[in-house]
Amino acid sequence: MGRSAFALVLILALAVCVAHVERKCLLSGSWRSDTSCRMVVSTLDKDNRFSGFYLPGPAAGYSELLTSPLEGSQQDTGLVTQPTFSFTVNWQLRETVRTTVFLGQCYVDTNGEETLHALWLLREAANSPAEDWKATRIGTSIFTR
Amino acid sequence: MGRSAFALVLILALAVCVAHVERKCLLSGSWRSDTSCRMVVSTLDKDNRFSGFYLPGPAAGYSELLTSPLEGSQQDTGLVTQPTFSFTVNWQLRETVRTTVFLGQCYVDTNGEETLHALWLLREAANSPAEDWKATRIGTSIFTR
Amino acid sequence: MGRSAFALVLILALAVCVAHVERKCLLSGSWRSDTSCRMVVSTLDKDNRFSGFYLPGPAAGYSELLTSPLEGSQQDTGLVTQPTFSFTVNWQLRETVRTTVFLGQCYVDTNGEETLHALWLLREAANSPAEDWKATRIGTSIFTR
Amino acid sequence: MGRSAFALVLILALAVCVAHVERKCLLSGSWRSDTSCRMVVSTLDKDNRFSGFYLPGPAAGYSELLTSPLEGSQQDTGLVTQPTFSFTVNWQLRETVRTTVFLGQCYVDTNGEETLHALWLLREAANSPAEDWKATRIGTSIFTR
Repeated sequence: MGRSAFALVLILALAVCVAHVERKCLLSGSWRSDTSCRMVVSTLDKDNRFSGFYLPGPAAGYSELLTSPLEGSQQDTGLVTQPTFSFTVNWQLRETVRTTVFLGQCYVDTNGEETLHALWLLREAANSPAEDWKATRIGTSIFTR
Repeated sequence: MGRSAFALVLILALAVCVAHVERKCLLSGSWRSDTSCRMVVSTLDKDNRFSGFYLPGPAAGYSELLTSPLEGSQQDTGLVTQPTFSFTVNWQLRETVRTTVFLGQCYVDTNGEETLHALWLLREAANSPAEDWKATRIGTSIFTR
Repeated sequence: MGRSAFALVLILALAVCVAHVERKCLLSGSWRSDTSCRMVVSTLDKDNRFSGFYLPGPAAGYSELLTSPLEGSQQDTGLVTQPTFSFTVNWQLRETVRTTVFLGQCYVDTNGEETLHALWLLREAANSPAEDWKATRIGTSIFTR
Repeated sequence: MGRSAFALVLILALAVCVAHVERKCLLSGSWRSDTSCRMVVSTLDKDNRFSGFYLPGPAAGYSELLTSPLEGSQQDTGLVTQPTFSFTVNWQLRETVRTTVFLGQCYVDTNGEETLHALWLLREAANSPAEDWKATRIGTSIFTR
């Protein structure tokens, strides 16, 4: 990840600080998962879309794994106070193609603490339809600020 | 879905016909699932992103279900001939919030026929973290032209 | 749950206390899930099979839900120190048929504390193949003593 | 698989032929999956439990994979005509521990043809809780006679 990408992360982080004062349960900002992964999510655009970066934790077991881009969207916050969201991470790997989709919901407790509960599917490209059956893993992630 | 949306579907369909002559295993175009759902996917932009519409089949069991927008992306086709893809459908429902994420791979057989194999997660907004455990359904879909 | 079932739970609990002195990471005994469900698992028979009871927590949202029987097995503990396991709960409901399968692994930390990490699938009987797509929910559970 | 196991398969197959004349949508008998796996299921005992064997197809990609035992149960057929079922396969592998749980439903069409629709979770034993996140794969199987 070069200098421009680093600058982008900084800008995202700053933008997020401002956004947070205004209202709760936005995906925007920095998050840490229960498996020590981190992610930085941009401010939402007018269509509730966001982008960002995902940094796998030490237990990921893919030594060559780099910071990877994510893209997603949040449901309209006018409709629900605890919005659902989805995003996709396209893993930056040299040899193989891996993609994870996350689908979850943001909850705020009485102290205003936000928590993201998500289920994810992780797919590696299969070589043929006959090998498709073993291409997908599943799990859950919980993210906190 | 008004007249302008219908026109968009037509334009998408036309754009897709042209795109198909050029190369195989693109998400773009019209698809029918093994549960009689249909979807129309736009041409891919320069970042391999697409948008489109999803039309649930008669068995969906949600009588109020309307044609719903989808957004997604396909992995770089330069890297693999049978690309993986992901997309999100935000269901247009009056009362509840439902989102489906699809994660799959496009396969081409020796006759040039394309098939999409996908796993999906469907989430309804839960009322509280205590009810989060039952918010997510899972299944598979197979799409053909 | 009548008096005899209650007595059985007690006997299971006693049997389990004895078993525990001998070795760690057995499914046998009482567990509490992260969603406040409780389960009591019998001692393992010679084929590593067990039975027991599952008691849903207050958030289950099925007011008519009763204590339900479970059946399962643990992988041979001679092969691995942190054994995998699976079990099935057949929910005792009046009107509908619901079954959950759990698949997980037992981990012991350096203090000898056991934790069960499991993924589960929950199925309601569908009325027809056309409605099969929405029959299955998915999630995770973490159990501690 | 030795001679005695082969004899058992034969006996199971014979027992199943008899059972089938009596009523439909029993798990008992021989099945072939959409990925060319085969399984043979015993007659059900008085508690609707069964055992059997699972034979992976050529695409399984585990060359050392042997015929593996399965155990499961079917919901009471007095309650529903299209019963749900679950079973577990403990894979017979030399080096690693793998277990699959299947959860599904048996459907009969107007011609009396039975089809099993199932979702499955496949777990490999993880080395530590930190690697637990990647231990589980998911998919679907459709079985016909």
